[in-house]
Amino acid sequence: MNPLSDSITNIVATALFAALLMTGFPYLGEAALPDPGMEVVEGRTALLITDPQNDFLSPDGVAWGVVGESVKANDTVANIESLFKAAKANGIPVFISPHYYYPTDHGWQFEGALEKLMHTIGMFDRKGALTTDGFEGSGADWLERYKPYIEDGATVISNPHKVYGPETNDLVLQLRKRGIDKVILGGMSANLCTESHMRELLEQGFEVAVVSDATAAAIVEEGNGYESALVNFRFIANTVWTTEQAVTEMQ
Amino acid sequence: MNPLSDSITNIVATALFAALLMTGFPYLGEAALPDPGMEVVEGRTALLITDPQNDFLSPDGVAWGVVGESVKANDTVANIESLFKAAKANGIPVFISPHYYYPTDHGWQFEGALEKLMHTIGMFDRKGALTTDGFEGSGADWLERYKPYIEDGATVISNPHKVYGPETNDLVLQLRKRGIDKVILGGMSANLCTESHMRELLEQGFEVAVVSDATAAAIVEEGNGYESALVNFRFIANTVWTTEQAVTEMQ
Amino acid sequence: MNPLSDSITNIVATALFAALLMTGFPYLGEAALPDPGMEVVEGRTALLITDPQNDFLSPDGVAWGVVGESVKANDTVANIESLFKAAKANGIPVFISPHYYYPTDHGWQFEGALEKLMHTIGMFDRKGALTTDGFEGSGADWLERYKPYIEDGATVISNPHKVYGPETNDLVLQLRKRGIDKVILGGMSANLCTESHMRELLEQGFEVAVVSDATAAAIVEEGNGYESALVNFRFIANTVWTTEQAVTEMQ
Amino acid sequence: MNPLSDSITNIVATALFAALLMTGFPYLGEAALPDPGMEVVEGRTALLITDPQNDFLSPDGVAWGVVGESVKANDTVANIESLFKAAKANGIPVFISPHYYYPTDHGWQFEGALEKLMHTIGMFDRKGALTTDGFEGSGADWLERYKPYIEDGATVISNPHKVYGPETNDLVLQLRKRGIDKVILGGMSANLCTESHMRELLEQGFEVAVVSDATAAAIVEEGNGYESALVNFRFIANTVWTTEQAVTEMQ
Repeated sequence: MNPLSDSITNIVATALFAALLMTGFPYLGEAALPDPGMEVVEGRTALLITDPQNDFLSPDGVAWGVVGESVKANDTVANIESLFKAAKANGIPVFISPHYYYPTDHGWQFEGALEKLMHTIGMFDRKGALTTDGFEGSGADWLERYKPYIEDGATVISNPHKVYGPETNDLVLQLRKRGIDKVILGGMSANLCTESHMRELLEQGFEVAVVSDATAAAIVEEGNGYESALVNFRFIANTVWTTEQAVTEMQ
Repeated sequence: MNPLSDSITNIVATALFAALLMTGFPYLGEAALPDPGMEVVEGRTALLITDPQNDFLSPDGVAWGVVGESVKANDTVANIESLFKAAKANGIPVFISPHYYYPTDHGWQFEGALEKLMHTIGMFDRKGALTTDGFEGSGADWLERYKPYIEDGATVISNPHKVYGPETNDLVLQLRKRGIDKVILGGMSANLCTESHMRELLEQGFEVAVVSDATAAAIVEEGNGYESALVNFRFIANTVWTTEQAVTEMQ
Repeated sequence: MNPLSDSITNIVATALFAALLMTGFPYLGEAALPDPGMEVVEGRTALLITDPQNDFLSPDGVAWGVVGESVKANDTVANIESLFKAAKANGIPVFISPHYYYPTDHGWQFEGALEKLMHTIGMFDRKGALTTDGFEGSGADWLERYKPYIEDGATVISNPHKVYGPETNDLVLQLRKRGIDKVILGGMSANLCTESHMRELLEQGFEVAVVSDATAAAIVEEGNGYESALVNFRFIANTVWTTEQAVTEMQ
Repeated sequence: MNPLSDSITNIVATALFAALLMTGFPYLGEAALPDPGMEVVEGRTALLITDPQNDFLSPDGVAWGVVGESVKANDTVANIESLFKAAKANGIPVFISPHYYYPTDHGWQFEGALEKLMHTIGMFDRKGALTTDGFEGSGADWLERYKPYIEDGATVISNPHKVYGPETNDLVLQLRKRGIDKVILGGMSANLCTESHMRELLEQGFEVAVVSDATAAAIVEEGNGYESALVNFRFIANTVWTTEQAVTEMQ
């Protein structure tokens, strides 16, 4: 960081803000929110994909009815694959944070709205933590076309998260144990697990660049999850990239 | 919770979902997302207000330019006060999770977009953790009209959070040490600290009812933070109430 | 909790402490540390066993050489079984927090002493998170005699922890989702995973009763892990019970 | 880290372990536990001191009766000062994690043994989070001779922890926001806050070198907290140094 240019930035930003305040802030131009950016540094940067699983990304998945439109509009499936390819080609470590429910999870005494829905429709269900019976090709399994990237022996698969964020799994430890402090983030679904991962990683002191078209979300009567996520990515992340930008940054 | 009506809700939700899946999910009606609800139980329920501070809620606050419109539209200031009053009148414990920055926090090497902006404009700045010099009436201080509720000796003020959620403070412990597992949540700002508190409390196994008009958010060129939060509250929380509903539930 | 006897305990403790301070604290009698106790309340209390796995508890396990003496001295294997039996007989939910390492975990760039040793000797190794190939009867598998209790479909098996505590798994969420706030704790090994679980559960606002003879630890040239744990259990937990006491409390 | 010598260490450790297993492990020599070591790297290493406060370190402190003997035996007060001096002289950032209780903390419904004792004797009590009334020179204040190091404007003082570890404060974030991933740890008291900080920092993916004579602990009828901590430091940390070694490593 250059302290001088940084100071100037601060002074300019403060002055701008003061001016805006004096005018009653009727309109905020493009400079309203800073874009801190994120530099991809070898050995410190990883690609993280949340929930690259059939239930979200396959037309046969139980959530396709609500997320399919958004997945198709963003070309999410191909974009996530482009991220996998770019990361593997450039030696950038890849981490997966999956979402599974086991039979005992259906004994929870309370859930939030989407948790309840996921449980009701059997999303991400597995027959147990210590059995893979029925897993192959199920809604909880990886999208078939991603398996070469995920099952290459190098990709780190964390424990499953159980709500939306990585608070309930070992993702943060796995990243830290490899010296990672910068994360390129994509996956499903935008305003749920992806956003909760973004938020938690920032709380844990990571830098996060979210890839805005390598994700998608449910669009239902109650709201457009993808549009919500886009706003929050822009407000909260260190930066927001398209898949094309992310691929370029990884090179 | 009523197990029978709950089962019926589940059955109906499943049937609806199945029907929607068969029809290709062209349209999801109002029942698309379940509303699990939250029952206020004496001794287990608390009111939590995030960032009830001048920088967000006073026309003199540094963020008023971007959040003022939303604060006025929701009548947020009065609604938060209604929640305080109802909680105190009904013996429901009140918790505050404030946001402060100290001089050393300006030595951070990286920040997300809004973190950077908050630092640039000196939002929530205090002169140190162990001095109250200049605090009274500053942007970091409580909104004056809330002081009788916050400073009554009974309200629990957690350590300040340092990003958006309670991961960096003792809020969760303070709630647990008093047997609280249900939280009525309001405060500022909707898609940042309020939403991050909602998300983290769910990860920690709390039930959360968000009060949708006892909060507000920045509206800037890059997006409407309040609208994003509303969608995410509905998707994620156990239930969403208006202030009026929350006051009724507390009685 | 009895408020009156509790107050008396406090008054006595204060007086005793004052007296000791005046005398220069040359000697602290048996009442030096309070014993807050823990009441077993139906629906709020669970039994938690850490690492009930062959590598610690079977003579064939890779750690038997260092822990076997302590396991035999405490009769740990039988005592853990007594806890399982008592919990199942009295409808007290049972939780297991296991310890597994996957091939990618051997790519960690740094480890503490015991972590390094565990990796070196292949302790708790599995061939992957999504395969059970070679698991049955391995060092990572449950001790055979515990399988009826662990695999009954009711026992909740959390994700594996990856260092010593439950910070890297979903145990806390699983407990909270069932309304548990009191934990009876046993398992292996005393000063590592058992103690780290005790410490983290207290940080998360649980009450913890540790069962001192339903655990054991490594005794090596560098120190007696079991003796260390006993001191820390007494200093930190809400109470310390023998298996016999725990079984009585569960009835 | 030297990969070659590291490999050799691993091979030797494995061989030794194999040999010991074959002989029934009757005796473990000094090499039983590996010592992974920790390299001090500029810009990535910090000094962390827990609870450098009067109640532990001053003969007037409320805990002196139980910890004084250990503090004197280790020359803890001077050793912590040596660490402060060495860190400041070598540009190594210094972090403090203090321990405070506020009046509302006395409303907790349950506590572990030492928590209860600390509350009973008024240890670390302050009159509130937003007042410094009565703080100067109190048991919660810094030991006077440390003030030049702690109050120099560069030392980062985290929020107070509320049980023993940094789970309830912002220490981990503060370290990460400055790129720190290696911690030299000293302070009070050895088997409580110091050890809980060591354990939690390891769970969060830090390397930790504990300074064994820059800490001390309570010695009571129920046990010697310092001896317990020494064993656990050796079992768990990346390495254990004396103050003299730590000062050398910092140069």
